[in-house]
Amino acid sequence: MADYREMWKELDMDLEKHDGLCEVLPMFYDEVYLSQENRPENMNYYNFVISEVHGLRIKELQDSKQEGKKVIGSFCVYVPDEITLALNCIPVGICSGSQFWVPDGEKLLPRNTCPLIKASIGAKLSKTCPYFQSCDVVVGETTCDGKKKAWEILKDYMDVYVMDLPQMKREKDKIHWIDEIKMYKDLLEEKTGIKLSFENLKEKIELVNKKRRTLKRLYNFRKYDPVPISGKDALLVSQIAFYDDINRFIEMTNKLCDELDERVKNGEGVFEKNTPRIMITGTPMSIPNWKIHHIVETSGGVVVCEETCTGTRYFENEVDENANTIEEQFENLANRYLGINCACFTPNKGRVEDILNYVEEYKVDAVIYNSLQFCSTYSIEYKSVEKALKEKGIPVIMIETDYSEEDTGQIKTRVEALIEMIKEKKGVTA
Amino acid sequence: MADYREMWKELDMDLEKHDGLCEVLPMFYDEVYLSQENRPENMNYYNFVISEVHGLRIKELQDSKQEGKKVIGSFCVYVPDEITLALNCIPVGICSGSQFWVPDGEKLLPRNTCPLIKASIGAKLSKTCPYFQSCDVVVGETTCDGKKKAWEILKDYMDVYVMDLPQMKREKDKIHWIDEIKMYKDLLEEKTGIKLSFENLKEKIELVNKKRRTLKRLYNFRKYDPVPISGKDALLVSQIAFYDDINRFIEMTNKLCDELDERVKNGEGVFEKNTPRIMITGTPMSIPNWKIHHIVETSGGVVVCEETCTGTRYFENEVDENANTIEEQFENLANRYLGINCACFTPNKGRVEDILNYVEEYKVDAVIYNSLQFCSTYSIEYKSVEKALKEKGIPVIMIETDYSEEDTGQIKTRVEALIEMIKEKKGVTA
Ligand code: SF4
Ligand code: SF4
Ligand code: SF4
Ligand code: SF4
Repeated sequence: MADYREMWKELDMDLEKHDGLCEVLPMFYDEVYLSQENRPENMNYYNFVISEVHGLRIKELQDSKQEGKKVIGSFCVYVPDEITLALNCIPVGICSGSQFWVPDGEKLLPRNTCPLIKASIGAKLSKTCPYFQSCDVVVGETTCDGKKKAWEILKDYMDVYVMDLPQMKREKDKIHWIDEIKMYKDLLEEKTGIKLSFENLKEKIELVNKKRRTLKRLYNFRKYDPVPISGKDALLVSQIAFYDDINRFIEMTNKLCDELDERVKNGEGVFEKNTPRIMITGTPMSIPNWKIHHIVETSGGVVVCEETCTGTRYFENEVDENANTIEEQFENLANRYLGINCACFTPNKGRVEDILNYVEEYKVDAVIYNSLQFCSTYSIEYKSVEKALKEKGIPVIMIETDYSEEDTGQIKTRVEALIEMIKEKKGVTA
Repeated sequence: MADYREMWKELDMDLEKHDGLCEVLPMFYDEVYLSQENRPENMNYYNFVISEVHGLRIKELQDSKQEGKKVIGSFCVYVPDEITLALNCIPVGICSGSQFWVPDGEKLLPRNTCPLIKASIGAKLSKTCPYFQSCDVVVGETTCDGKKKAWEILKDYMDVYVMDLPQMKREKDKIHWIDEIKMYKDLLEEKTGIKLSFENLKEKIELVNKKRRTLKRLYNFRKYDPVPISGKDALLVSQIAFYDDINRFIEMTNKLCDELDERVKNGEGVFEKNTPRIMITGTPMSIPNWKIHHIVETSGGVVVCEETCTGTRYFENEVDENANTIEEQFENLANRYLGINCACFTPNKGRVEDILNYVEEYKVDAVIYNSLQFCSTYSIEYKSVEKALKEKGIPVIMIETDYSEEDTGQIKTRVEALIEMIKEKKGVTA
C-alpha cells in the first residue's frame, strides 16, 4: 500500500487512531474473504478495492475535488445519485458497518441506538473515516428516529443537509418528494455554481440505470444451482457499489458477470448443488458488516439474495428514461425512488410482496430476517413478514444483532439448526 | 361503584382479565395519592373520576354514542381536538401508562419498544380498556418509528386512521399540516354525516382555548413557594384532561384553582417553603404512570412543572381566535399545533428554549430528564438539553425507565442524591 499519511493528515484525520483501524481491517478481510474456495477470478478487483479502501479511492476523490467536483455523502438509498452526478458531484455512501466506531458514537448517542447510526456518527467524531473527511456536505433524511435526531448532532461537526422523506406513499407524498428532490438539486446548484440541464440529467439517469442493470445481472446468476458466486462476494460487490467510481464499477462488475456466465454454462459453483439457499431480509449491511453472511456460509448454507438496501432495494426498478422535460425527469425519479419498500414507510405492504417474489425467483429454502439492534421499524415489521412466509411454508428466523462479535456463537447455533432442518427437508445428506 | 359488568360485556371486554386490573389500580391509587398530606379539598373530584375511570365516564361515552356522537381515540397532542369536537365527536386520549398491558403488547411488538406503545397495543389486544373498546376510530400519527409501525398492527383489530405529521417545521410543512387537518375533518364528516361549519369550529376553538387557559391557571399556582398543590396532583389533573368531559373539567379545575388562590393568599402549601423544586421534562406520562413524581415527592422534593405532553406542551399556546373563514381557522390551528416542540421533529430547538424559560418561570432548582425506555427521539435530545441547562448552572439528571417497578429503588437513590445536593446548595437543613 502506498503511503497516504500526508493525504490523511490533510484530511484532518486522527492518524494514530486510524492506524488501529488499518491494523485490524485487512486481517479481518483475509479471514472472511480470502479463506473462501472457488472464488471467481474477477473478485480480484474487489480485493484490490478493499485493500485500497482508505487509499487509492480517497486519492481519486481528492483529485476530483481539485478539479472542482464536490463529494456528497449519504446514508440512505433514497438520496438520488442521478442529481448528484448530474451536478458534477460524486456520491458516496457513508453508512458505517464497523464496531470500531461504535464507542465513539456512544459518546453522543444513547447506547440504545442502532449500531449503524452510532458507528456513522463515531466515524466522524473520531476523524478516522477518510470518506467522511472528504465530504463537502452530507445529506441526511427523515427516515427513522435515530437518523433524524443524529443529524442534529452531526451538524456541530460538518455541513449537513436533510431531505424530508415522506412517511407514506400517497399521491400527495409523491408531490412532496418531487419537491424535496428539487430542493436537493437547488442545494447542489448552489454548492457547485452549475445549473442542472435536461441533457446532463438524462445522461446520468441512463448511467445509474446501467449500474442497476449490472447489479441485477449479477444477482440473476445467484438464481442458479449451484450458485456461481458466494453471498459474501455478492454482498461485497454491492457494498463497493456505494463508493466506487461508477463507470469503472460497471465495467468491472460486467467482467465478473461474464465469468459467472461461463461458470453457469459449465455447471460450476462455489458450493455444491443443493446447498441450502438462504435469503436475508432486513436492515442494510454496510462495509465491513459481513457477519451473518459469514456465519451462513461457514455453516453449510449459501446466501442467494438480500432484500436489503445493500441488496435488491438498491438496484430494483429503473428510472423511466422517457422524459421530455426536466419536470418529467423529476417525476420519473420520484416514482422510481418511492418504489423502494423501506420499513420507515407506513404502511409498507410492498416489502412483503417483494420478499415473496424473491423467494420464488431465487429458489429460497429459508429466510433470515436480520435487524440491527434497536431498529424499531424493521423489527416491528418482522411479524407481518413472518406471517406471510409461514403461509407459504418458508422457514424464517429473526436475528437481531449489532456489530460486535459477542453473539456470534449463539447466532451460529441458530443458523446451523436452520440449515440442518433444510437439509433434512431436501433430503441432502451432510 | 355501580355494577358496570353488563356495559363492559357489551363492549366486548375480557371481563376476567379486566377484574385483575380493577383489583390492583385502586390500591395503587390509594397508596400514591390518598397518602398525601395537605391535599386541596377540590382534589376530591379527581379522586372520584379515578374511582369511576372505567365506570361512569364510560357510561357517559356510551350514552353519547346512543345520541349519535362518535368517540375518537388518539395518542398524540397533535391530533386537533377542536375538529373532533366541532364535528360532534368526543376526543379521548388513549395512550396507556400501565405495566398491566405491556406483556400483551409484547406478543406483537418487540421487547425493545417504548412501553407507552406496548401498553397501548396491549390494552386493545387484551380487551381490557373500555376507552379503546368505545372508540369508533382511533387516530394515529407519523411521529416516532414505534407508533408509525404500531398502527399497521392495530389495523387488524379496529378502525385506524393515520395523520401524517410533518418531520420538520418549514413553511411547506405547515401547508402540509393544514392539509392533514383538512383530511382529518373529511374523515369525521364522513363518519358523522355532519358538515363542519365556521360557527361550530369557532365555538370549539374557543372552548379548547378555555381548557388550555384553565390548565395554565393551574400551573401558574405551581410557581409559588410554598407550592399549593403537589406535582402528583397537578399531573393527575392533566392526565384526566385527556378524557374527561371538557365543560365539566374546566368547571371543576377552576374550582380547584379558586381554592389554590386562597392557599396562596394564606401562604399555605403542600410542602414546606424552600422544598427543592424539580421540573420534569421528556416523554408523556399517561395514566397511571406516576412513578417519577411519586419518587420525587417521597424523597423531599416537589415537582413544579412538566415540560411534557401531559404538561405544558398540552396547554401552552392558544389557537388564534381571529379568523373570518374556515380557511383561516385551519391555518390558525396549524400554527398553534406546530408550536408544540416535540422531539419527533428535526430540528427541535424550540424545546430547549421552552425548558430554559420554564426553569425561570417556575423557579426550578433541578431538572429530571425523563425518557421512556427505547424512545430514541427524546433520549437523543438529552445531550442538547443537558448542555443548555449546565450552561445555566441548573443540575440535571437523565432517568430512562419503563412502567415496571424493578428500577424504583435505583431511581430513588439517584433522586435522593439530587435533592440532597439542592438542599445543601440552598442551605436548607433536613
Ligand atoms: S433501510 Fe430505509 S432508511 Fe435505511 S437506507 Fe434503506 S431506504 Fe434508507
Ligand atoms: S437500520 Fe433501522 S434504525 Fe438503523 S439507520 Fe436503518 S432504519 Fe434507522
Ligand atoms: S411526545 Fe410528541 S409524539 Fe408523543 S404525544 Fe407529544 S407531540 Fe405527540
Ligand atoms: S415516548 Fe417516544 S417512543 Fe414512546 S410513543 Fe412517545 S415518541 Fe414514541
